[in-house]
Amino acid sequence: MNVEPRTLKGFRDFLPKEARKRAYVIASLKKVFESYGFEPLETPALEYEDILMGKYGEEGDKLMYRFEDNGQRRVALRYDQTVPLSRVAAQYQNELPSPFKRYQIQNVWRAENTQRGRYREFLQCDIDIVGVNSYVADSEIIYVAISCLTTLGFKNFRVLVNDRKIFEGIESRAILIIDKLKKIGEEGVKEELRKNGFDEGILDKIKNASPTESLEKILGSQKDYVVFEPTLARGLDYYTGLIVEIEVDGFEAGSVAGGGRYDGLIGMFSGQNIPAVGFAFGFDRLLEAMDAKNLFPPNLTTTKVLVINQSENQEAVSNIVNPLRKNGINAEIYLDFNAPLEKQFKYAEKKEIPYVVFPVNENEVELRTKSSAGEIVKKTIPIDSLPNEIV
Amino acid sequence: MNVEPRTLKGFRDFLPKEARKRAYVIASLKKVFESYGFEPLETPALEYEDILMGKYGEEGDKLMYRFEDNGQRRVALRYDQTVPLSRVAAQYQNELPSPFKRYQIQNVWRAENTQRGRYREFLQCDIDIVGVNSYVADSEIIYVAISCLTTLGFKNFRVLVNDRKIFEGIESRAILIIDKLKKIGEEGVKEELRKNGFDEGILDKIKNASPTESLEKILGSQKDYVVFEPTLARGLDYYTGLIVEIEVDGFEAGSVAGGGRYDGLIGMFSGQNIPAVGFAFGFDRLLEAMDAKNLFPPNLTTTKVLVINQSENQEAVSNIVNPLRKNGINAEIYLDFNAPLEKQFKYAEKKEIPYVVFPVNENEVELRTKSSAGEIVKKTIPIDSLPNEIV
Repeated sequence: MNVEPRTLKGFRDFLPKEARKRAYVIASLKKVFESYGFEPLETPALEYEDILMGKYGEEGDKLMYRFEDNGQRRVALRYDQTVPLSRVAAQYQNELPSPFKRYQIQNVWRAENTQRGRYREFLQCDIDIVGVNSYVADSEIIYVAISCLTTLGFKNFRVLVNDRKIFEGIESRAILIIDKLKKIGEEGVKEELRKNGFDEGILDKIKNASPTESLEKILGSQKDYVVFEPTLARGLDYYTGLIVEIEVDGFEAGSVAGGGRYDGLIGMFSGQNIPAVGFAFGFDRLLEAMDAKNLFPPNLTTTKVLVINQSENQEAVSNIVNPLRKNGINAEIYLDFNAPLEKQFKYAEKKEIPYVVFPVNENEVELRTKSSAGEIVKKTIPIDSLPNEIV
Repeated sequence: MNVEPRTLKGFRDFLPKEARKRAYVIASLKKVFESYGFEPLETPALEYEDILMGKYGEEGDKLMYRFEDNGQRRVALRYDQTVPLSRVAAQYQNELPSPFKRYQIQNVWRAENTQRGRYREFLQCDIDIVGVNSYVADSEIIYVAISCLTTLGFKNFRVLVNDRKIFEGIESRAILIIDKLKKIGEEGVKEELRKNGFDEGILDKIKNASPTESLEKILGSQKDYVVFEPTLARGLDYYTGLIVEIEVDGFEAGSVAGGGRYDGLIGMFSGQNIPAVGFAFGFDRLLEAMDAKNLFPPNLTTTKVLVINQSENQEAVSNIVNPLRKNGINAEIYLDFNAPLEKQFKYAEKKEIPYVVFPVNENEVELRTKSSAGEIVKKTIPIDSLPNEIV
């Protein structure tokens, strides 16, 4: 076949090394989500176009993957996880608990401009609480976010919070200008406010605003990471109360998570007014931040022990590998006993396998590993004690 | 908005109860795969059409989801995980270890006829060993399959094995007829052979064939579940050696896993001859079999403890829930302290939460659960001992 092996721009293969890092973060997040009683939800990759297009005007028109399927139906690929959640909330009203606390970790697809370093297929990690309008729910969302970050090993980060009510009486265009404070600075915001016919005094008024009663309660219970940031707006097209954004100190590529309360959106299919609050991690951003802060455990490799295989007698190597597996240690035998030793070593290196074992006789093996100084350490031990030697 | 909430035919939402079962099986399979040194691989949902169409003629033409993207590229949705594996094997030849042992658990999309109970989006769980042609690899694939099933709790199942070489010298059309033995019986096969101009004696010849040398080695080391089945062909369009299929006794809906050796396929992009052996679980079939055999653990619920919330004092309930979470027990407080007790109970029921806790005073709580006889059991205990009471 004469087809060049290649992937589409903006789409990625995740080879084992990267896939393992992703799996580690996903498992960590799921564990925290579930410790607070959030439950998994999965929705289809493909939906009717009219379902997914509801929330998005021009943006969806340009960026959504849409096409006609073999049955002449107009369909589209999942663009976010909020619209599917709205559909689910309407479609299974009587089956779902109320409040409905769900997490959803699935890919979404957007025909983004890849020159700006954006991907066209990327993972979203959302948690949302649907059906309760209370600062207790807002507060829980913030707790979960903090718990996720500390679980992953982050130490210095700030949870910026605001309330949409802080902007009451201010025109949307002015809010969007104030939202740029971090990018263009105080003078920049004031100048832009003036240019657009607004009173530059709005900025100071907002900066000096006091937290709302609901924010006071949140700030009162979570002093360590939470900071009131009255100029935070996050675009604001659909937030109705809490607005939240998380920044990792010393990681300037942008916020790793954001969210807020959006009481108008979840009812879009049910015609009811359903309150909701939630947040999402930017998964790729989060992984970048973990790399930057060196937070991945040193030994995320899959296989812990490779058993060198150089004889047709497969029983001998099986007797070494089986007790390891029974002790919960990932272990493998090299699958081609005709392969030269060098090739088997290279395999262990490529897979970053920390221990290599040679059969010596029926009862003993030689165990090789690298010391922290990088030197190869060898010792001959009884097969029985092998599982205890693996750390 | 006036759009009816609905999903496309053949596509499914997985609400928490179902999603948890899926997550349980996936986690169990991954653990076994990794215990043998198989590593995760992820490939994009969308690929160039010419990449994915390579292996499939008419079938792909009809069943693959294909369209033109916004950049006028012909693209298609992942149709299986073997073609992407072939692409990856060619594209990253120098980066991958050899042999390359990977598992891949992702959705595929096929525009199947849903009337036959088929889905258009479904999960595939594949493991493959690329780059080694040895009965040791064949044998490992079978070990992994057996280990997966016993880990999930299956007791009585058979791993049917065969070798393509058994059919040497027999025409493909005749093989396909013999492959129907289970469906149409011995007389049926003989009749169809005759009708198509074949000697009906072929069937007996195949039935009495002896296992190949390589099969002998596999059968010798794995007596418990493995059965030589010389009439097994599995369509046979690309198997070159081992053929394997797993049947669960008393579950008649069909085999739960199948695979074999396919030395011609993985080299399709690299132009090299790359040996490979692998198998795949039919994920939906596997879940059906688990349901039929009642193999899901009774308590797969996410939340173990619900703390009833009836006062504005959130510190009191936080003091109950936090130590539980610290002890690794998933616990939640009901998020609306204004909600009537009845509503909070109903929530616990819908989420199948086994324990409900009421704050009594600063130091004590009332713990409620159901006895195995279905009676509600209450006791008042110190908050400190709560984590020890949860089983």
